[in-house]
Amino acid sequence: MKKYKVSVVGANGYGGGVLLRLLAQHPKVEIQFATSRAEAGHKVASSFPNLSNLLPDLEFSEFDLNSLKQSDLVFFATPHGFAQKYVAELFCAGVKVIDLSADFRIKDIDLWEKWYQEKHQAPELVEKAVYGLVEINREKLKTADLVAVAGCYPTSVQLALAPLLQGKNLASNLIDVKSIIADCKSGVSGAGRSLKQASLFCEIDENFKPYSINGHRHTPEIEQGLTNLAGSEANVLFMPHLVPMKTGIEATIYVDLTKEALDLGLEKIHKIYTETYKNEKFVHILPLGEPVQTLAVKGSNHCNIALALQKNKLIVMSVIDNIVKGAAGQAVQCMNLVLGFEETLGLEQAGNWI
Amino acid sequence: MKKYKVSVVGANGYGGGVLLRLLAQHPKVEIQFATSRAEAGHKVASSFPNLSNLLPDLEFSEFDLNSLKQSDLVFFATPHGFAQKYVAELFCAGVKVIDLSADFRIKDIDLWEKWYQEKHQAPELVEKAVYGLVEINREKLKTADLVAVAGCYPTSVQLALAPLLQGKNLASNLIDVKSIIADCKSGVSGAGRSLKQASLFCEIDENFKPYSINGHRHTPEIEQGLTNLAGSEANVLFMPHLVPMKTGIEATIYVDLTKEALDLGLEKIHKIYTETYKNEKFVHILPLGEPVQTLAVKGSNHCNIALALQKNKLIVMSVIDNIVKGAAGQAVQCMNLVLGFEETLGLEQAGNWI
Amino acid sequence: MKKYKVSVVGANGYGGGVLLRLLAQHPKVEIQFATSRAEAGHKVASSFPNLSNLLPDLEFSEFDLNSLKQSDLVFFATPHGFAQKYVAELFCAGVKVIDLSADFRIKDIDLWEKWYQEKHQAPELVEKAVYGLVEINREKLKTADLVAVAGCYPTSVQLALAPLLQGKNLASNLIDVKSIIADCKSGVSGAGRSLKQASLFCEIDENFKPYSINGHRHTPEIEQGLTNLAGSEANVLFMPHLVPMKTGIEATIYVDLTKEALDLGLEKIHKIYTETYKNEKFVHILPLGEPVQTLAVKGSNHCNIALALQKNKLIVMSVIDNIVKGAAGQAVQCMNLVLGFEETLGLEQAGNWI
Amino acid sequence: MKKYKVSVVGANGYGGGVLLRLLAQHPKVEIQFATSRAEAGHKVASSFPNLSNLLPDLEFSEFDLNSLKQSDLVFFATPHGFAQKYVAELFCAGVKVIDLSADFRIKDIDLWEKWYQEKHQAPELVEKAVYGLVEINREKLKTADLVAVAGCYPTSVQLALAPLLQGKNLASNLIDVKSIIADCKSGVSGAGRSLKQASLFCEIDENFKPYSINGHRHTPEIEQGLTNLAGSEANVLFMPHLVPMKTGIEATIYVDLTKEALDLGLEKIHKIYTETYKNEKFVHILPLGEPVQTLAVKGSNHCNIALALQKNKLIVMSVIDNIVKGAAGQAVQCMNLVLGFEETLGLEQAGNWI
Repeated sequence: MKKYKVSVVGANGYGGGVLLRLLAQHPKVEIQFATSRAEAGHKVASSFPNLSNLLPDLEFSEFDLNSLKQSDLVFFATPHGFAQKYVAELFCAGVKVIDLSADFRIKDIDLWEKWYQEKHQAPELVEKAVYGLVEINREKLKTADLVAVAGCYPTSVQLALAPLLQGKNLASNLIDVKSIIADCKSGVSGAGRSLKQASLFCEIDENFKPYSINGHRHTPEIEQGLTNLAGSEANVLFMPHLVPMKTGIEATIYVDLTKEALDLGLEKIHKIYTETYKNEKFVHILPLGEPVQTLAVKGSNHCNIALALQKNKLIVMSVIDNIVKGAAGQAVQCMNLVLGFEETLGLEQAGNWI
Repeated sequence: MKKYKVSVVGANGYGGGVLLRLLAQHPKVEIQFATSRAEAGHKVASSFPNLSNLLPDLEFSEFDLNSLKQSDLVFFATPHGFAQKYVAELFCAGVKVIDLSADFRIKDIDLWEKWYQEKHQAPELVEKAVYGLVEINREKLKTADLVAVAGCYPTSVQLALAPLLQGKNLASNLIDVKSIIADCKSGVSGAGRSLKQASLFCEIDENFKPYSINGHRHTPEIEQGLTNLAGSEANVLFMPHLVPMKTGIEATIYVDLTKEALDLGLEKIHKIYTETYKNEKFVHILPLGEPVQTLAVKGSNHCNIALALQKNKLIVMSVIDNIVKGAAGQAVQCMNLVLGFEETLGLEQAGNWI
Repeated sequence: MKKYKVSVVGANGYGGGVLLRLLAQHPKVEIQFATSRAEAGHKVASSFPNLSNLLPDLEFSEFDLNSLKQSDLVFFATPHGFAQKYVAELFCAGVKVIDLSADFRIKDIDLWEKWYQEKHQAPELVEKAVYGLVEINREKLKTADLVAVAGCYPTSVQLALAPLLQGKNLASNLIDVKSIIADCKSGVSGAGRSLKQASLFCEIDENFKPYSINGHRHTPEIEQGLTNLAGSEANVLFMPHLVPMKTGIEATIYVDLTKEALDLGLEKIHKIYTETYKNEKFVHILPLGEPVQTLAVKGSNHCNIALALQKNKLIVMSVIDNIVKGAAGQAVQCMNLVLGFEETLGLEQAGNWI
Repeated sequence: MKKYKVSVVGANGYGGGVLLRLLAQHPKVEIQFATSRAEAGHKVASSFPNLSNLLPDLEFSEFDLNSLKQSDLVFFATPHGFAQKYVAELFCAGVKVIDLSADFRIKDIDLWEKWYQEKHQAPELVEKAVYGLVEINREKLKTADLVAVAGCYPTSVQLALAPLLQGKNLASNLIDVKSIIADCKSGVSGAGRSLKQASLFCEIDENFKPYSINGHRHTPEIEQGLTNLAGSEANVLFMPHLVPMKTGIEATIYVDLTKEALDLGLEKIHKIYTETYKNEKFVHILPLGEPVQTLAVKGSNHCNIALALQKNKLIVMSVIDNIVKGAAGQAVQCMNLVLGFEETLGLEQAGNWI
């Protein structure tokens, strides 16, 4: 069987490392290049010792655009501002691109430039990019040449709220899209593998904290996604927190129900959720009363969602593994669509409880 | 110098253990009895090895009401439902009581019975009990015979919101007290030292989760406290979460500002906070832009508070050590007032960063 | 393709839970029963939420010997003393048994009874049991009806020392088998899922400690295994320690080299190691100078080994995941041999770095 | 009361931070300067938020030798190679120096240069330096002008073995000083606060590992100390390991008893230990059978020691907090002697169990 050639740019970060693991175990692709400026020439397994049996010989290489053109598909697991400089040329060479960074997620270039405080290098490509959140954008992804994989927090929030936002398809939204509060918590792998004092073990352990308290860059991505789903402009107060654990995101989202939705009651809303996701392999609605927990999805591509009603507000809680469903797993799920594979291929692995 | 005799009932839990440590280092009291049904006859130091040098000889004793009458003051660090059976008799014997449980916190007996699902055994004492949150109730505590120490979450929320609730004293509250959302997170010591599968290391590590998602027992205590401060009925959506760490509470609270408060702006609101707490030794307002973090107060009796404004909502964030300012430290602070000591005595110790 | 029916007795512990995960993803078997006294009637997924997608419908059942006779193979993941009561009957019914407990590991019944302080219920079966450490006992396992899976610590120590013990096959052992010191460290999952105060998160975190300091039950198993390998009686000072982490064992073993081995030098000894294990899929010798680390094998069935020489002593260091290669993974590896499958089937999964 | 002026050079590391905390709470000294190249001009409390109430105004300053001459005593909490360049000048100005680095610990300059791979800048001061392990060197410390505070691992090993090494004072040593094995484990604060990938939370959590497997720099310090105690040359195989926790060292030490000591038996050896340390405030011998645990001494200046006998080897286990008794606490204990204070002053604080 012919295997597709795929490459990973920026393979030495946590997203890159998990992507390499998933790709190395994927039955229909083979890894061609794994680039890393800092680690070029060194074995992948010396940076990710867990891969020493899967990828005993693979070495990190320098980023080289011409080499990458030999691949069928290239993943960028780089900081924002990088992929946008090179995608066009790969694109012209017929290479498909799946970008895990924020470069192509925001359609409004001005908004992107405002939040990221730099000039966008490839605004013309932004509109070609398909937003990579499979459960919401499945059909478009099947024909995409450039995928902007959804961010970790935005994935947790959008999957949690999508069933309530049916303005485009059905009669109306079930919630007031102007007053959403998303109180989100993430493990520290979300801060990346770069060297920061705040990421040292001794500074993280026993330390829970909010951050970016005046506004976080994932806000416009969340609002854009919810606006698209709702059919009217959504407004989200998004507050991220850092949890002393390696992986996992939990989102607790407070929404005001419309009068009609309040009349429906929690059980019927719960039924709308189970209906919405009944055919999804990776999204699961917990029985009423059962809370979500990050450990239940650790290491897997799954998203669990729970619902509660208090003080006339609906509380939607979701959990994902920020590096799998929030990054590398979602990227593989997108790749499966882009290359015409079964959507779950290479992502069947259960998570680890211990 | 004469030392007061104090005893701790239920001394083998985490609150009890920290209370013993603080009392053993307190210059004006001596520990008379430390009771524990499960550990009676065993050394305190075998249950809390950190105390082996401070309390090398003290043994846990059986709970015995007559013995306790010899003490000047008795702390109850027991589960709810216990203290209420014995306080009256101690009270009659002239012993002062500081109860760390929920037994005497809620003034509305029906409400207490509804949330705790049992009949209250000493309703007549509830109104005599003084609520033990020193920064809010200092004067009354100086003459109290029975103190109902504030709960951990309620402490974090009330200290965070008090400066906004001036309806009783000043012109008006700064927020809509009907739409408060308190998204709180606690370390696992809050679940106590009893044996539960969910408290095992292997079930906690890497596991962040909400709990009591349909309503938590601290809700009525928080609402009662805020109502008292506000002068009108407060309504709080309180959602607790469990963090994979030993100690620490962080509260992220979302409130709607009144129009007047919005016009004031964040800087003036910040100034109201610093003014409100300017003479407090244990409450600190961080500079605007600086987030709170639980590690900053770990092991100490301090509470740090930060403010932010997003989407026209004020976000108040506070951190305490749930076992110190949220329980044992607050109990000692109350004792210092009740016995006429300097308020900070025995509580000067700085927290540990590592 | 016909799938073999397998069952797991004692499936609610950590070993059982990982065994269920591995079996559910194994291509040639299907899980028939998962028994648990405490959880009978409840879903497996409520106890191990990570399995909710793999095993959405499976429920724990009561232990029932007659039902188990319908299985082709039964795993016991029970405390010692249990399997020995039931294996004979399963055995007679033609069911193969793989026991993860200590019941059939020690050939000397007196020795077993001395260490476990109870009478053995099936001494006649002990000699029929094949010791389940595949790399050392592969051929015998292929025809085994009853397998006594090696213990976690004994696996880490025997794999680490086997290349030095060639007395039976070659000229001589390379070490003095009378003066071995094995200083071993394990994550807390090794203490099981039962409720013990010492296993609570708040008692484990930041707490490293030796235990069983006067002698641990794995000592006779280690000595028996090394004696068999060496051809003369081995003597091991085995000292276990508890590490504040979920899974992983590291063994640091100090041995006195024979004069001949000292003359060989570290590089040649290293070569003997790489030769010994060159065809093994799950055992890996690290380059000289590179230390082992538990995270490199977390979640996988692999064992990494490193060597060093100091003060004329050889230091052999090995790491395994105590619940995978030290229990459930090794049990599946044994099953693959017993049922005639490829040895690595269902065990290919790489570990997780994050 | 006049307070002595003390300064801390290199105050932004973990040792420096704990030293500042201890000094700020010490009744007889005041902190004059806290220097840090990286943080000069910033508040100490922004680097160590736990100190914001103790030291609200103190700022890190640049290292400036002339300013430091105004202090009565200067601590160096700097990497090796730094203090040796400046001590002479402070010395001449009459300033006492307590150095927490390795610069003045090793009396044999050649040996120091071999292990540290650089030329020593002040060999003439080395012999003037008094080794700062109070329990072993108390009298000399009382008149010291320059103290070389013992290293963390060397403290744990020397306190553990001192009672066995009486060759200088009594009839004979109880052990063979040529065949000591010290298998030691440390929390990650021992690796310092500098930015290393291996110190990131995501690389440490769930990762236990040996390091410096071919020989660690603390070996000559341990051997020098034991040789001094024994009166004949000691030989130690020292193997350090990293534990996924913030603080704490546990040493498990294997020694061969002399024939006479074997005849004495474990109980008499235990008695020798309790006798040796009966007047020490910070060293405690646990009852036979009870293992040490790092959590018991976390945050305190105490050292606990346990004994066991297996296979004719004596096993001595000790625990300390590596940053307190292994660094900053020990430095304060030395200072108390140097300045003529009560030895325990400022070090009475009990550790934290939670």
